[in-house]
Amino acid sequence: MSSQDKFILYWLDESRAHRILWLLELLELDYDVDVYLRHEETWRGPPELFHVHPLGKSPILEIKFADGRPNLQLAESGLIISYLLKNYDPQRRFSPKGEREQIKMDYYLHYAEGTLEAILMSMLINSTAKRVAPLGMRTLAKVYSRGVNNGYYIHEYHLNLRYLEQQLRAEGTGYFVGGKLTGADIILSFPIYENLFDNEAGVKECADETDLYKKYPNLAAWCDKIKNNPAYSRITDMMRAKVDEMYAMKRRRR
Amino acid sequence: MSSQDKFILYWLDESRAHRILWLLELLELDYDVDVYLRHEETWRGPPELFHVHPLGKSPILEIKFADGRPNLQLAESGLIISYLLKNYDPQRRFSPKGEREQIKMDYYLHYAEGTLEAILMSMLINSTAKRVAPLGMRTLAKVYSRGVNNGYYIHEYHLNLRYLEQQLRAEGTGYFVGGKLTGADIILSFPIYENLFDNEAGVKECADETDLYKKYPNLAAWCDKIKNNPAYSRITDMMRAKVDEMYAMKRRRR
Repeated sequence: MSSQDKFILYWLDESRAHRILWLLELLELDYDVDVYLRHEETWRGPPELFHVHPLGKSPILEIKFADGRPNLQLAESGLIISYLLKNYDPQRRFSPKGEREQIKMDYYLHYAEGTLEAILMSMLINSTAKRVAPLGMRTLAKVYSRGVNNGYYIHEYHLNLRYLEQQLRAEGTGYFVGGKLTGADIILSFPIYENLFDNEAGVKECADETDLYKKYPNLAAWCDKIKNNPAYSRITDMMRAKVDEMYAMKRRRR
Repeated sequence: MSSQDKFILYWLDESRAHRILWLLELLELDYDVDVYLRHEETWRGPPELFHVHPLGKSPILEIKFADGRPNLQLAESGLIISYLLKNYDPQRRFSPKGEREQIKMDYYLHYAEGTLEAILMSMLINSTAKRVAPLGMRTLAKVYSRGVNNGYYIHEYHLNLRYLEQQLRAEGTGYFVGGKLTGADIILSFPIYENLFDNEAGVKECADETDLYKKYPNLAAWCDKIKNNPAYSRITDMMRAKVDEMYAMKRRRR
């Protein structure tokens, strides 16, 4: 049984929004996706996103309530996932049972953005900086950005990957909390799977690391579960087709 | 009326832990503070923090329940504040009234770490990198780190400060949510007041910006409220004395 409320997801390609789309699909909610493409050079979101929210960020979720309450606009992935699970998952299909397990899930809803993603984004931005450096300075920029990454971020990156691998090993169920797919896995799908395990070239460039799959077998098995989740495959195929079509239209307009 | 439960806060100097101490004091809870000092050169937390939590982070809050339930260890500021307010503020002295306002407060509990702090920390780490660069490379390192900061972080920094100023202006009460001091102000005290408004030299170095107080009058007035809050002054004086004493002991041991 699904709610009569309607949802609009403001979705940016290759962004944190994909996991929110996944949750809307898992909960069988009545949603529309409003698709935005990144600027091909700056990699930023487009100016139109600022009409949706003053920080121009994605995901933004808008809820139109069937009972006539005014629309609600939500930002921040952790809050969006928390709100959707609290209000649209009465059978707790994607929430664990028991107070301690609920707190653990809520912890990951904060940790994924508050700790993990902050490290990964910084590593990524520092390592792409060398590409935008003036030509003559690129080797130097590479040395320097690698220095900043090695000096701080890479240390934190390894620490966190070992921690996450250990958390999965200790759980022993293949999931982060409660032995099933929950909001914890949904929010972690972006930093762990999309940013890292599905981004070999990026990881090689930032962290000089290959074969994450061998080094972290529990995380690797978890990533396979994400990738092969039927709802996840469905939205990924759907959005890939949609984005390809939008790029093709853009090219035709030139 | 306060709870019989006992709390241990693992507190690192100049860290996100200070606001948790502030909330424990505001809620008149029965707490102990376990104090850790940063490494004087690397600015990291000490190895002992890793005995508390595998990521070596602060704040960590441990709760010893009076009713015999096993201890609970909480990490991530947003989760800690959320948990304390839900369980130890029955009169909602520091939570707003009404569902929409509660969601707005919860938003800031995610935003402060998930968006704002990530930008500020990156700016800071990039700008300190030039100090640890080999001597002959410092000017270059400075140019380069300023390039990365200008290319991405400074843009996001200005965007977020304007946004926060605008949020306060729109509220018109001097607080972020609900016309009184809430968890939103408590979590934002670290990024806005400690990192920026109380850190003129750091802001000058990272963002080449002076006079935040003139540029953002609403944020400035809010910062004054934080600084002059009696509980905030009390814990700040208390911890300053404690940290001074610990440094003095360290020096004597050498």
